[in-house]
Amino acid sequence: MARVVVDVMLKPEILDPQGRAVQGALGRLGLTGVSDVRQGKQFVIDIEGDLEGDRLALMHTLAEELLSNPVIEDYSMTVLEDAQ
Amino acid sequence: MARVVVDVMLKPEILDPQGRAVQGALGRLGLTGVSDVRQGKQFVIDIEGDLEGDRLALMHTLAEELLSNPVIEDYSMTVLEDAQ
Repeated sequence: MARVVVDVMLKPEILDPQGRAVQGALGRLGLTGVSDVRQGKQFVIDIEGDLEGDRLALMHTLAEELLSNPVIEDYSMTVLEDAQ
Repeated sequence: MARVVVDVMLKPEILDPQGRAVQGALGRLGLTGVSDVRQGKQFVIDIEGDLEGDRLALMHTLAEELLSNPVIEDYSMTVLEDAQ
């Protein structure tokens, strides 16, 4: 059993209005010194068996093309083997 | 400079239709053996200075009450000191 965690975040050069709104709200609620907030998505995917070779390559392809929009987003993928 | 990463995920007992849709799509696109997918949000927050004491407690409160909905979501928070 493998657990794959895919984090998808807007590229740094793309404006993030949701993050900007959160930054403003944090300040209004008393948290000082917040210099930047970015909001992204996280996918936690449980997969039976090991994730190796072709399946791992396919998972990377799908993370880039299905889970994220490569024009405006970057993704990072972490594979945890032997997850519960 | 501290970087705070807050991951917000639906509680395990709450249905996740977005995750279910992703699970179906992964299967149709050829990734076999996907047993579960959960979709959540990730906030990356850059804060000036150290995050300790009252400010850390306030950050926890805001993560629970502003960034997540404690009725249906869990959050986890990681503080990275000396982030770029």
